[in-house]
Amino acid sequence: MLIVMRPDAAETDIDRVLDVIETLGFRGHVMPGENRTAIGITGNKGSVDPTHFENLRGVAQAIRVTKPYKLISKELRPEKSVIKVGTGTIGGDELAMIAGPCAIETREQLFAAAEAVAASGARFFRGGAYKPRTSPYAFQGLGVEGLKMLAEVRDQYGLNIVTEAMDERGIDAVEEYGDCIQIGARNMQNFSLLRYAGRAKKPVLLKRGLSATLDELLLAAEYLMAEGNYDVILCERGIRTFADHARNTMDLSIIPAVHRLTHLPIIVDPSHGTGHNYMVTPLARAGVAVGADGLIIEVHPKPEEAMCDGAQALTLEQYADLNGQVISLYKLINAQVAEPVSG
Amino acid sequence: MLIVMRPDAAETDIDRVLDVIETLGFRGHVMPGENRTAIGITGNKGSVDPTHFENLRGVAQAIRVTKPYKLISKELRPEKSVIKVGTGTIGGDELAMIAGPCAIETREQLFAAAEAVAASGARFFRGGAYKPRTSPYAFQGLGVEGLKMLAEVRDQYGLNIVTEAMDERGIDAVEEYGDCIQIGARNMQNFSLLRYAGRAKKPVLLKRGLSATLDELLLAAEYLMAEGNYDVILCERGIRTFADHARNTMDLSIIPAVHRLTHLPIIVDPSHGTGHNYMVTPLARAGVAVGADGLIIEVHPKPEEAMCDGAQALTLEQYADLNGQVISLYKLINAQVAEPVSG
Amino acid sequence: MLIVMRPDAAETDIDRVLDVIETLGFRGHVMPGENRTAIGITGNKGSVDPTHFENLRGVAQAIRVTKPYKLISKELRPEKSVIKVGTGTIGGDELAMIAGPCAIETREQLFAAAEAVAASGARFFRGGAYKPRTSPYAFQGLGVEGLKMLAEVRDQYGLNIVTEAMDERGIDAVEEYGDCIQIGARNMQNFSLLRYAGRAKKPVLLKRGLSATLDELLLAAEYLMAEGNYDVILCERGIRTFADHARNTMDLSIIPAVHRLTHLPIIVDPSHGTGHNYMVTPLARAGVAVGADGLIIEVHPKPEEAMCDGAQALTLEQYADLNGQVISLYKLINAQVAEPVSG
Amino acid sequence: MLIVMRPDAAETDIDRVLDVIETLGFRGHVMPGENRTAIGITGNKGSVDPTHFENLRGVAQAIRVTKPYKLISKELRPEKSVIKVGTGTIGGDELAMIAGPCAIETREQLFAAAEAVAASGARFFRGGAYKPRTSPYAFQGLGVEGLKMLAEVRDQYGLNIVTEAMDERGIDAVEEYGDCIQIGARNMQNFSLLRYAGRAKKPVLLKRGLSATLDELLLAAEYLMAEGNYDVILCERGIRTFADHARNTMDLSIIPAVHRLTHLPIIVDPSHGTGHNYMVTPLARAGVAVGADGLIIEVHPKPEEAMCDGAQALTLEQYADLNGQVISLYKLINAQVAEPVSG
Repeated sequence: MLIVMRPDAAETDIDRVLDVIETLGFRGHVMPGENRTAIGITGNKGSVDPTHFENLRGVAQAIRVTKPYKLISKELRPEKSVIKVGTGTIGGDELAMIAGPCAIETREQLFAAAEAVAASGARFFRGGAYKPRTSPYAFQGLGVEGLKMLAEVRDQYGLNIVTEAMDERGIDAVEEYGDCIQIGARNMQNFSLLRYAGRAKKPVLLKRGLSATLDELLLAAEYLMAEGNYDVILCERGIRTFADHARNTMDLSIIPAVHRLTHLPIIVDPSHGTGHNYMVTPLARAGVAVGADGLIIEVHPKPEEAMCDGAQALTLEQYADLNGQVISLYKLINAQVAEPVSG
Repeated sequence: MLIVMRPDAAETDIDRVLDVIETLGFRGHVMPGENRTAIGITGNKGSVDPTHFENLRGVAQAIRVTKPYKLISKELRPEKSVIKVGTGTIGGDELAMIAGPCAIETREQLFAAAEAVAASGARFFRGGAYKPRTSPYAFQGLGVEGLKMLAEVRDQYGLNIVTEAMDERGIDAVEEYGDCIQIGARNMQNFSLLRYAGRAKKPVLLKRGLSATLDELLLAAEYLMAEGNYDVILCERGIRTFADHARNTMDLSIIPAVHRLTHLPIIVDPSHGTGHNYMVTPLARAGVAVGADGLIIEVHPKPEEAMCDGAQALTLEQYADLNGQVISLYKLINAQVAEPVSG
Repeated sequence: MLIVMRPDAAETDIDRVLDVIETLGFRGHVMPGENRTAIGITGNKGSVDPTHFENLRGVAQAIRVTKPYKLISKELRPEKSVIKVGTGTIGGDELAMIAGPCAIETREQLFAAAEAVAASGARFFRGGAYKPRTSPYAFQGLGVEGLKMLAEVRDQYGLNIVTEAMDERGIDAVEEYGDCIQIGARNMQNFSLLRYAGRAKKPVLLKRGLSATLDELLLAAEYLMAEGNYDVILCERGIRTFADHARNTMDLSIIPAVHRLTHLPIIVDPSHGTGHNYMVTPLARAGVAVGADGLIIEVHPKPEEAMCDGAQALTLEQYADLNGQVISLYKLINAQVAEPVSG
Repeated sequence: MLIVMRPDAAETDIDRVLDVIETLGFRGHVMPGENRTAIGITGNKGSVDPTHFENLRGVAQAIRVTKPYKLISKELRPEKSVIKVGTGTIGGDELAMIAGPCAIETREQLFAAAEAVAASGARFFRGGAYKPRTSPYAFQGLGVEGLKMLAEVRDQYGLNIVTEAMDERGIDAVEEYGDCIQIGARNMQNFSLLRYAGRAKKPVLLKRGLSATLDELLLAAEYLMAEGNYDVILCERGIRTFADHARNTMDLSIIPAVHRLTHLPIIVDPSHGTGHNYMVTPLARAGVAVGADGLIIEVHPKPEEAMCDGAQALTLEQYADLNGQVISLYKLINAQVAEPVSG
């Protein structure tokens, strides 16, 4: 059930609707829009009787939701969501550039990368302190020590920090030291973790699972939002197919599909999406051209010495070149189309 | 590194090897075999110098391990592992039958299913108290109340309980009330959870992820074992492909591949593997014929009323029929081949 | 449109229906069954008016067909089709065993394989004279010379010959020298070839394409039948997925799906389906257990010297062992179930 | 084996090398380049002795080829091939735009589309006279009548005609009436057809199969070239995966991979690649951004009345808009990078 308020509805009208929802034992989710506010209802087992709401003051419509997702839906919020991440935003008029090393290895490596990323004009820095590794014997990240270094990067360069958490302790720590909690592909359907992150106070970057359908990705976002965290950014990072010339197959058609169904921003990760250095820049361009709201790129001062995923990391020079290309590409595309390309 | 002891090595010889391993800052994993004991080493960053061990009393050989996995490997333990689950075993001479409803719904439903499963001669009962659901709005299971009902089923019918945990609290609870902790397909690469389950005192049933390669499945098992839990049972439950006539594509060739590389037992789940009632019995037969050590089957007294996955649940009658078929099939196959089919 | 005749309908009644169909500009396909004959209609653009037929003598029913396929359907022919291939049959009470080398290389190789296959009691022999090879520079087969050798094998051992054709000339040649035309996986949607084979006078073994859905496989069979060749045998030979432990992923759940929808027999190819010698026998057992009507197996007197696919070929001894296993398995399964397992 | 000639080698030197190749029983393929000519050798079973060539006049080097493909390789021809198609080129400095309806239905439909395509400045027109359809009962195309209409389109609008052939008769007919023979995805490994098209005198547009790996695509091109047809254009048109939000999954990372390994141009088909009207323009932009040499787009004056694939066809207005976007995008990208993006 979705309650659409009239444009002239007052705060008190909204509060009254929320009261009724609560009295019924459900939860209301307020989504302010440009022209009107909508209120999503979750927690109901069956369908909700619309007559509870139709005669309340300020209510324009009570709409039954037939799709399996409610809060991510454009029905609830027709305008695109602009997500505030630290001092920057994702989903607005600017291409969001998130760059940094796969894993935090040393201060030197981290600060060298951060300096180059800041110099490029990017607003966001990535770097893994907790690394989900296929083998238990591979390097697992520096943990909290790494997060503290990331916080220093923020202090020194003004970059907003995006970093992965793999469990509840990790989410608490990222909430403390970082600006955006990344949920990795392998945890996209770790529903307990999604619920926990849904109660965090920082935005969440949710990466698509290796074999997740569009619906599954959207419902994973719905898990976060149903707990009250509406600041969700999606990320396409390649899916697993038979094709063997790249590490994964980037599925760029999901970008227009996401923009058609949801109000959430979506970014593209051509580093994990391809796994090959020489493919990253072409696919970054493709991601921007298809309408993504941002890019997340792995850079390393010395890719050949990287402890993790060196084959896909760009050098600092390659990143500067990529950045120049995609910024002008983004401008061209947004100038071309009357409404934003991703609209 | 893998230390193979001589057949006549004494306990004290083994302890001496473990001491040296510990002194070096690593961890030793003792794997007793029919003819000799082997000791796996984990925790080393690079390769370990074999000369530390070669001259110790009772040591036959120090072997460098070149594969990414160590503890699951047949090199470490040439004989198949027989895993004790409550009062039963999986991986031994008997086909392990695990049956029960997808989700625990009511006492009536649970006990009706349990009575039929017990009557069939099965030793294991399944039933979900924590359900990983794609949508946050779907039925999520009865939680601890459900686990308590399962414990009653064990008391009444002598069935050993296999049930899923989705997070640390769930693992603690299953450890308390159940006999075997199931890690679901969506959590196969939830590495934090694997580590936690690796410290539990109950065996773990590890389901293959929807797009997991053989190596990824084996390394997930390795996560469990590296923490000291050697009682791991693998499970093939279908992978995600383009094929649309079944919910998933059962990949039965993984059974001989697992038996070739590891000492771990592997069972087959034709219920999730197909998603269609009419396919479950044929694919259960195929699973046994290919060499699986057991089956896990969804049964429901009234599939049409099931709160979860009703389309794939067998009726109690259908299950009895399936059980009869696969038991005689298993006998035939094991009689035919000099060594067990899965050898 | 599907015309079901009454059990007591006379030949002349059937002829009358065919006349009417022809007068309307369509084509009638007579499918005799145990209890009644049905007549499929093809060639119509839109739906056909049932009143043309309902009052003709001997007509029980005129049924509108809503599925995209008509002639393969159980609606047209509820009983399973038993396909005559030379002096043998596929789809009847006996497990059809087809064995032989991937490619015909030399007389010695071919006759050594044939002798062993005949000794096992198999009724069918395979061997490639025209080889579809990924590279233009790989061995492409002996062509007509190879077919002539196959004809000698038939004369000497009484084996019925199944061999692949890749184009119209090949179909003509196989029709002349062989007993069953194999259409390979890469040509499953070579619609011109299917039409041509649909006008041949020999049965067709149609292998599933590497990424063919069930519907696509059935419609490829429909192409053959629409041209008048009703002697079609389907074959599951593995699909292409991300899984890398086998050359392809055998999709055994298609066997019960095919038996549910169609009257056509389906066999299983565990040699191409797995690509690994050690997997062939377990998967052959699984194929029989799931309900396949036969197996097609690659054998070679000296697999290590094979010019093509040596890694998956069984030795003659291994084949004899496989054959013994699957024959007794087939008997057990057919004894167990009241109706045949594939029913 | 690959013979690289010296920059100053004379025609007579090249002829002498070809004579030696012929004398050895092999076939030579001359590939002129900007700075030097190379000669590929095919038809050899094993490796060729380089000493046959090393001392011939004008020979710089005889290089053993270790990859499975020879003639498509950059080793043979470091510069990109520019393929002449009628009066236009593909692979040169201009983005090749190929547009037109899926199937030729009527003169009106065809000429309405052609007028709009010509007005956009495109040099190439597509339209299917022979349609590979999954069902034998679906519209199969107008055949030669359709080809004659296409020839009229060329006469009237100066557009070069790209159209599919499904068999040898079709190739003869397209050679007569069209400018470029399209081999469809389902025939990518129809090796008999590839050989036949390799002997045609018109260029070939080779579409990637639904589950073809990069190597398989390249070797299919090699089939064409080994017969002497060096005018090959590749096409990415989406692969089959589990993802269900689009008809196929466009695999754009194959574009940089093809450009890295081969001298052949590659274009992108976002119409079949997505199957949804609203995705075509974003994915067309992405294709250009990733470095494709051209696009092939389905347009229809009235998509809602199309006899085939209407859901993915653009209206004439949408096509004009797409065209404007991709042309300026192509210019930007080629201006940005010192060497062409696809280099």
